[in-house]
Amino acid sequence: MATRDTSPDRVRQFSDGVFAVLITVLVLELRPPRSANFGALLPLWPTGLSYLVSYVFIAIVWVNHHHLFSYAQGVTPRLVWSNFAHLFSVSLIPFTTQWIADSKLAAAPVAMYAAVFVLVNISYVALCWEAVDRPAHQGVSDVMRRMLRMRSVITVVIFTGAALLSLRWPAAGMALICLCLAGYVRPDVPSSRDDGAAA
Amino acid sequence: MATRDTSPDRVRQFSDGVFAVLITVLVLELRPPRSANFGALLPLWPTGLSYLVSYVFIAIVWVNHHHLFSYAQGVTPRLVWSNFAHLFSVSLIPFTTQWIADSKLAAAPVAMYAAVFVLVNISYVALCWEAVDRPAHQGVSDVMRRMLRMRSVITVVIFTGAALLSLRWPAAGMALICLCLAGYVRPDVPSSRDDGAAA
Amino acid sequence: MATRDTSPDRVRQFSDGVFAVLITVLVLELRPPRSANFGALLPLWPTGLSYLVSYVFIAIVWVNHHHLFSYAQGVTPRLVWSNFAHLFSVSLIPFTTQWIADSKLAAAPVAMYAAVFVLVNISYVALCWEAVDRPAHQGVSDVMRRMLRMRSVITVVIFTGAALLSLRWPAAGMALICLCLAGYVRPDVPSSRDDGAAA
Amino acid sequence: MATRDTSPDRVRQFSDGVFAVLITVLVLELRPPRSANFGALLPLWPTGLSYLVSYVFIAIVWVNHHHLFSYAQGVTPRLVWSNFAHLFSVSLIPFTTQWIADSKLAAAPVAMYAAVFVLVNISYVALCWEAVDRPAHQGVSDVMRRMLRMRSVITVVIFTGAALLSLRWPAAGMALICLCLAGYVRPDVPSSRDDGAAA
Repeated sequence: MATRDTSPDRVRQFSDGVFAVLITVLVLELRPPRSANFGALLPLWPTGLSYLVSYVFIAIVWVNHHHLFSYAQGVTPRLVWSNFAHLFSVSLIPFTTQWIADSKLAAAPVAMYAAVFVLVNISYVALCWEAVDRPAHQGVSDVMRRMLRMRSVITVVIFTGAALLSLRWPAAGMALICLCLAGYVRPDVPSSRDDGAAA
Repeated sequence: MATRDTSPDRVRQFSDGVFAVLITVLVLELRPPRSANFGALLPLWPTGLSYLVSYVFIAIVWVNHHHLFSYAQGVTPRLVWSNFAHLFSVSLIPFTTQWIADSKLAAAPVAMYAAVFVLVNISYVALCWEAVDRPAHQGVSDVMRRMLRMRSVITVVIFTGAALLSLRWPAAGMALICLCLAGYVRPDVPSSRDDGAAA
Repeated sequence: MATRDTSPDRVRQFSDGVFAVLITVLVLELRPPRSANFGALLPLWPTGLSYLVSYVFIAIVWVNHHHLFSYAQGVTPRLVWSNFAHLFSVSLIPFTTQWIADSKLAAAPVAMYAAVFVLVNISYVALCWEAVDRPAHQGVSDVMRRMLRMRSVITVVIFTGAALLSLRWPAAGMALICLCLAGYVRPDVPSSRDDGAAA
Repeated sequence: MATRDTSPDRVRQFSDGVFAVLITVLVLELRPPRSANFGALLPLWPTGLSYLVSYVFIAIVWVNHHHLFSYAQGVTPRLVWSNFAHLFSVSLIPFTTQWIADSKLAAAPVAMYAAVFVLVNISYVALCWEAVDRPAHQGVSDVMRRMLRMRSVITVVIFTGAALLSLRWPAAGMALICLCLAGYVRPDVPSSRDDGAAA
């Protein structure tokens, strides 16, 4: 069975295709306005804003996915299915972002948005477990492993909190989501210094 | 002619692009509702459900495609054209799933759905034949070969049965389809233990 | 400058992405009918037929593109721009196919269709020239080179003829196009025997 | 940490997926006309023209992106985020091109178009800085580095000028944009001779 290609490259490439479609989906909704002055762009702001926001958030998810798969070594059925669950959750981001922009930050859309990120993170925890945690991985220190795990659990808790919070105060819930995502812009902040030293 | 690149990598990458577009096609149909409460999401259930179902079924098809191509070694015209026929059949899944959800499990849509899976499986049998069966493949045992072949034939028979069944009892036909697909979640169940031992 | 990656792999991968989007574009137009019986599918036949036809024709173009790029060795600006021209021409196939189906084989759409294939082939000739003809290619025999060139010129002539013919007799023009494309199902028919022997 | 895959290949492949979707987005807007004569194509010219123009401009951006990434050696967070900013700016090209065509070269759309290209170029400068400038790159001469930098700064200045100019004389602004882009058809014009000699 030595000739079988079991590297995670194909899972990675397929995921990139899905990310590429999802990140550009909302731009299809942007239609040029009838009149040719800057004022005519104003009514487009809900779609424009939701395109920008969901672009940034999907980019953050991609960066973390990319980071995680740089540790993946083999393809297990669990890895594949966690990845499909992850991509499915991500595919709901454009839809819910647009709902938020349309409704101008109403309670139900923001709570649903936080719920989508709870899904995104639960599937990410499952991915972490398969790609980094389980294998006796020579490239991953115990410190990093523990950090990845703790970070994911905290994130799930925060997003669940944001979902509940936004049923009452949607603006506060949205702020919490944005803050939490900002912490993910660099996937490996605390260990990045060692990383740079080791590379 | 030794310099020609005849590895199946490009066929695989192209297929992944097609799968990535198809698996996300239906999310484009999900438009945020006018009002901003959870009740407003209810009328979207046919599209939402059909997106989820066709996502899962295309994922199952991808897993099996991925499994099969891990054995492929060269590119023959027959492999390429079986693959195109396979991708074409898969591309009909979103459309028929949505028809089922719209019609709430009526007879004609479910029968058509089963017919699409008959097509998907016939082209998969052709792919198996080209990728695994024909070449004097060192990585594929005779047991596995026979199993793959038998399994595919049985699946075609079951889906044909489901198509006929659902003309009368669509719910029963649909249940048969789901059961049969569930058996494909792991593409190599019976040989997986040997697989693990050999890897 | 030895570290620069000048392999045609990225051009190939980008082209595959474009092909993947184009080959599935028309399936987005297929919407499930209102009523749930097989008769309700009938009004969809123009889109369904044009999806099938443009799928098959883009598949034929892909097979030839794949065949050609298996000989490509370096990336020249001319190769890149011929490829962009080729992809642009291919991107017009879904649109024109749908026009033909909508108009039930009227003169103007069929003539335009033939004109699109003239463009596809002129850009293919340019691609051949860059990928196979120009480089002192060790893997390409003189016979094959001459054949590729002659074949392309003949095809351009036939498609131009089909465009003129269909202004009068659109059905005859369409038949000529289909015949000519059928000859491309296998990109290397005459040399395939030697190919098999050499591989 | 030696086992981590830090090659820029995945960033490249993801970008290609996004480019592939963006370059074909506008073809989705081309719908066949009702009547079957060439005259019926005339009302489609704004979409047709904007598809052609944005196709060519995205192709030019891709060629430069491809050129730049052939020098990239590692993946840094800054490279990834500059790349996301670059792709985001590019994704606005189809929308603004269509607005220009719809409004028949009015002032606001052309100024906005130039502004989009200012964004595209600022993010390209950031990409250049990360991929070519910063690393102690053995494959990049000082001359080329200085040239890339100067060229980018000049381009940003010209596009900003075009944006201001087109508020008054949109046709002149558009001409300036086209001229400036024409200079990018070959990404490495001045050093291309050495390039050819070194390759």
